[in-house]
Amino acid sequence: MTLQLHDLNLRGFASDNYAGVHPEILDAIAAANNGHQISYGEDVYTERLHEVFAEHFGEGVQVFPVFNGTGANVVGLQSMVPRWGAVICAKTAHINTDEAGAPEKVGGLKLLTVETPDGKLTPELIDREAWGWGDEHRAQPLAVSITQTTELGTAYSVEEIRAIADHVHARGMKLHMDGARISNAAATLGVPLKEFTTDAGVDVLSFGGTKNGMLYGEAVVVLNPAASEGLLYLRKLNMQLASKMRFISAQLIALLHDDLYLRSASHANAMASRLRGALEAGIADGSIQGVGFSQATEANGVFATLPAGVADRLRQHFRFYDWDAARHEVRWMCSFDTTEQDIDDFVAALVAELAA
Amino acid sequence: MTLQLHDLNLRGFASDNYAGVHPEILDAIAAANNGHQISYGEDVYTERLHEVFAEHFGEGVQVFPVFNGTGANVVGLQSMVPRWGAVICAKTAHINTDEAGAPEKVGGLKLLTVETPDGKLTPELIDREAWGWGDEHRAQPLAVSITQTTELGTAYSVEEIRAIADHVHARGMKLHMDGARISNAAATLGVPLKEFTTDAGVDVLSFGGTKNGMLYGEAVVVLNPAASEGLLYLRKLNMQLASKMRFISAQLIALLHDDLYLRSASHANAMASRLRGALEAGIADGSIQGVGFSQATEANGVFATLPAGVADRLRQHFRFYDWDAARHEVRWMCSFDTTEQDIDDFVAALVAELAA
Amino acid sequence: MTLQLHDLNLRGFASDNYAGVHPEILDAIAAANNGHQISYGEDVYTERLHEVFAEHFGEGVQVFPVFNGTGANVVGLQSMVPRWGAVICAKTAHINTDEAGAPEKVGGLKLLTVETPDGKLTPELIDREAWGWGDEHRAQPLAVSITQTTELGTAYSVEEIRAIADHVHARGMKLHMDGARISNAAATLGVPLKEFTTDAGVDVLSFGGTKNGMLYGEAVVVLNPAASEGLLYLRKLNMQLASKMRFISAQLIALLHDDLYLRSASHANAMASRLRGALEAGIADGSIQGVGFSQATEANGVFATLPAGVADRLRQHFRFYDWDAARHEVRWMCSFDTTEQDIDDFVAALVAELAA
Amino acid sequence: MTLQLHDLNLRGFASDNYAGVHPEILDAIAAANNGHQISYGEDVYTERLHEVFAEHFGEGVQVFPVFNGTGANVVGLQSMVPRWGAVICAKTAHINTDEAGAPEKVGGLKLLTVETPDGKLTPELIDREAWGWGDEHRAQPLAVSITQTTELGTAYSVEEIRAIADHVHARGMKLHMDGARISNAAATLGVPLKEFTTDAGVDVLSFGGTKNGMLYGEAVVVLNPAASEGLLYLRKLNMQLASKMRFISAQLIALLHDDLYLRSASHANAMASRLRGALEAGIADGSIQGVGFSQATEANGVFATLPAGVADRLRQHFRFYDWDAARHEVRWMCSFDTTEQDIDDFVAALVAELAA
Repeated sequence: MTLQLHDLNLRGFASDNYAGVHPEILDAIAAANNGHQISYGEDVYTERLHEVFAEHFGEGVQVFPVFNGTGANVVGLQSMVPRWGAVICAKTAHINTDEAGAPEKVGGLKLLTVETPDGKLTPELIDREAWGWGDEHRAQPLAVSITQTTELGTAYSVEEIRAIADHVHARGMKLHMDGARISNAAATLGVPLKEFTTDAGVDVLSFGGTKNGMLYGEAVVVLNPAASEGLLYLRKLNMQLASKMRFISAQLIALLHDDLYLRSASHANAMASRLRGALEAGIADGSIQGVGFSQATEANGVFATLPAGVADRLRQHFRFYDWDAARHEVRWMCSFDTTEQDIDDFVAALVAELAA
Repeated sequence: MTLQLHDLNLRGFASDNYAGVHPEILDAIAAANNGHQISYGEDVYTERLHEVFAEHFGEGVQVFPVFNGTGANVVGLQSMVPRWGAVICAKTAHINTDEAGAPEKVGGLKLLTVETPDGKLTPELIDREAWGWGDEHRAQPLAVSITQTTELGTAYSVEEIRAIADHVHARGMKLHMDGARISNAAATLGVPLKEFTTDAGVDVLSFGGTKNGMLYGEAVVVLNPAASEGLLYLRKLNMQLASKMRFISAQLIALLHDDLYLRSASHANAMASRLRGALEAGIADGSIQGVGFSQATEANGVFATLPAGVADRLRQHFRFYDWDAARHEVRWMCSFDTTEQDIDDFVAALVAELAA
Repeated sequence: MTLQLHDLNLRGFASDNYAGVHPEILDAIAAANNGHQISYGEDVYTERLHEVFAEHFGEGVQVFPVFNGTGANVVGLQSMVPRWGAVICAKTAHINTDEAGAPEKVGGLKLLTVETPDGKLTPELIDREAWGWGDEHRAQPLAVSITQTTELGTAYSVEEIRAIADHVHARGMKLHMDGARISNAAATLGVPLKEFTTDAGVDVLSFGGTKNGMLYGEAVVVLNPAASEGLLYLRKLNMQLASKMRFISAQLIALLHDDLYLRSASHANAMASRLRGALEAGIADGSIQGVGFSQATEANGVFATLPAGVADRLRQHFRFYDWDAARHEVRWMCSFDTTEQDIDDFVAALVAELAA
Repeated sequence: MTLQLHDLNLRGFASDNYAGVHPEILDAIAAANNGHQISYGEDVYTERLHEVFAEHFGEGVQVFPVFNGTGANVVGLQSMVPRWGAVICAKTAHINTDEAGAPEKVGGLKLLTVETPDGKLTPELIDREAWGWGDEHRAQPLAVSITQTTELGTAYSVEEIRAIADHVHARGMKLHMDGARISNAAATLGVPLKEFTTDAGVDVLSFGGTKNGMLYGEAVVVLNPAASEGLLYLRKLNMQLASKMRFISAQLIALLHDDLYLRSASHANAMASRLRGALEAGIADGSIQGVGFSQATEANGVFATLPAGVADRLRQHFRFYDWDAARHEVRWMCSFDTTEQDIDDFVAALVAELAA
């Protein structure tokens, strides 16, 4: 029996987690293997991890490796608010739409959601739900969660984050960032991680690894220790404590080593940009008709509208998701392993289907 | 920078999860890499996994890969009992002592615990808590959880499990098995997995991988689909759904391929047996004094009592845990990578410390 | 010491729960007193209660007295949906805005909220959130909750409820009614309770007593036993089981006896109508200016907009709440003990303040 | 129709909550009726309640009226420990045996139970579970809950409570008292409430009212404000906030007025003492044979063992519960309305059955 069961030629634009593992990550896992290491986080890789995160996010930050992004979000938010807390977020936030109610059902958190045009909160939008402190009939809004880059492929600027943080803190709330695609944000902003997180006033961060080439693993990063309590216990009781933690830590170290996180994310962003550029060029010269864009392309995703029927035909060759089927809106995601050829093939296929 | 940070010569008997990853498992991960696969379980590895588990546990079983053992236990048990359910288990059960209250805090389960001499429940012991059905003041005992092999290194025989299953089912309850070390049980019993699980009447199984050489990952295995509901949703909402699931599935396939699970577990068991045998021989010939055994050695753990002070001195060379410090009781665990030399060195060190 | 501490002359329009207890209710409590009765619901009053509710809601309905409305809603909804369930409701629903997150935090329910103009859901509005069944990433929409009469003083017609029920059931969901003011609905619709609940397709009802003159107590009424599971246990584990239940049951019997529920609610509705009528007359003849109405007055509440500053001045004499301070919108509630004189005095005061 | 449905002559010894409402309590409810009062606790009765409790428990205590004892316990304990907390209690504690798992399922608390001979914890018994702080695998023991008087009819002395409090506090834990029968404790100890609560080091108290003649209602009393957080919110989100709170407060005021709590409890205790005395006298003079006592009678309950069959025959005339059917152990509870005639009739019936 061969252990390789899958068709290596299947490729697509469905999600950045359809991709596999970056070779440098696999190497790091192998390097951390063999011999014995204390389980549950007292290993030397996790020890080093704290140094590595301190370099990128500032002295005094705390890092808690976990299994996945939903776990990072729920554990991080639980550490930020008491049992009576509520969290303000965009209606399109992953915690609201894609985590099966884990924040409510496991975290005991109430989400106060706000409609946004582009997945981004603003001070004004936050204020629609930021009220009622002291009124025991209202779950108390004590944290705000933003996603960087957003679920709609957009990115907050450093200034926008800082304005939100100031606004949030001025009202006695805390700021959480879902950074499942934080590397794509760093790549698009062109600034160090610290600048749009710790320095901008984010209190707790879900640092994403899996969507950027890790096998598994994310980290809750406490940027402001005064804003978080009990993470050691919360991670365990929420079933997010890995026994062989050295391997998550080794991956995270590798991701931050030699800017792998940035190389991979920049590439993914560039591929999305190439896709958007090719389509825009076609629209400009008239070779592509009926295609529109529903969001800016600021990271590794392109949100487009297509003529009816085109998406389904195109999916016979490349897998991707409808975003809002009623509007014929689709989402195309690029990953660290997307190639220029992938993009060019896809554009050609789209052009062909549009002409069909 | 080299990515290898740890001292490969550090070895010990603290836990089977101090060991790393079996090379055949790492190979399987590499083989499953590259190209795109649908995330969250619609990949070809997970598809194959169902066939592999059907071969080992019987047609119709359902497999739900998860991240870790605590997750497997909580998700599995939640699928077995309604919101008002309680679970009877040994007081020493992992779900009671080592999961930080996750069954209660996340699962909403009440545990009804029973003292046991050896970590094993019996029909009589179960009956101490199996009562009060229909009384709304009592959390309803609707499931029993046994651990195979137990937290005390003992193993249930096939007949013992069957007797428990019959007893449990006759009272309208369901039987859960925490199989974090199920491979060690298969090795010590010398029978196929199916014989002491599905065929013996177990309803839902937590199938352990990490303690037997996997990088991460376990599986909730529904042996009796009538006894479990909603696992698809419960896994996700409990934050145990891996996006790149192909890699957990590939590991589980590799573990069951060519009897790797049995080879590794048999080896670990044999090393524990070697350790116990060497000590018993020393006791018999008088060369070892003051050492006793607090549990039978039926799998990969040895539970012993030592003269005061010996454990701490010995730990300067080999890491292991006190089990009950007040009684000077220690636990020595062997893993797939424990060598005969490890055992012999350890025995020699123990003899030296006893003489010190 | 006298035990009467309050000023009996304080009156207002803040909420129907500012009023006290109807004398017929107090008489019923006294009549049920003395002697011993089995606690926790095996008393003769609770036995009779089942007959009384069967008369009003149909044979086979089940009644579970509880302490309060939040308890009734959470316990009832928990009995309707599994752990992975979500509940669709109006954004203004009491379960979303006024229960401190109890549905999420205690019930483990995710609420999927929809904006409405008047607090009323429709099949079309429900469909905005009624999708995604089978997708484990989405909390499963398995129930819809409507409030009758609504938090905005409006009422669903029998036909509207039936259309919602048909729509909901056709999609495999269940229908819950928060009937904190169900008596006001019966009064305004002029039909028997059964006609707009059981017969219209409601599955589980929170039957309100406290806002209609009871001392305390509500009831979860299972109109469709196939749509609810485990209420006996859920009531107790959710801390809503009264030991001296005979007294809640006696109150509920009294409320339904000799149409007390309808007499009280009709009176409260009539007082709201008198208030609205007086204001409309004043607007029509020009004696009142600057006052508008933001909702229809179909039960015992009037929602109005006032010129800036008027509400605060008026509140020096009569207590009532702002509904949306930004819009100068206020809510005036009438109760079973509101008098015609109360209304006339209030209108006079409002006219005076408008002229000030 | 008459509203009185029950047979006033039915009496028994099943539970102190089989009794009804003390007339002084009913009077207090009537006195608090009529007129409007702010709901949810801003009424003048609740304001006075704080003064009354300050008189009995000391300046600075905080009082939060709730619906029932389970609610008081869960809300109080939640306010004392974080999400990762565990609570040490006797295995026979009401929170462990009679609350349907509410502490675990709603409170998210893990209970660490200890076997006791008489329902009373001691520093030594507490230490069986008071360990493991800082170990994230163990739910953190951060509170101890004792019941006064206990579920077995015994009472802690002032010194015993103080010793426990000192022990608990020295280990960084907090002390909770389930005072469902605190009035019986005051009566048996013959000291002011404050002496064995606030002054003895209890941090948070569940003050019981229903078992001592109230219609409904208990109170969470924070004796040490530094030991409790968020009760205002926790009470509401746990569905224990009464809208017409004036009536719970009025009852509690009446219970503490003119020593009603003490008069009622002393009477109940005296009746239990009369029962025990009569039986002991019969045993001494040989007229009663086969009857033993399994617990001391220090409050209003008598725990006895009877010859096989006697309990069931006796129950045809007087309702009471088996405590441990296997041992033929029964529990007889007296209440504020138990009469000397009740006791004498019961003793006579028992003597007759023993002779049958």
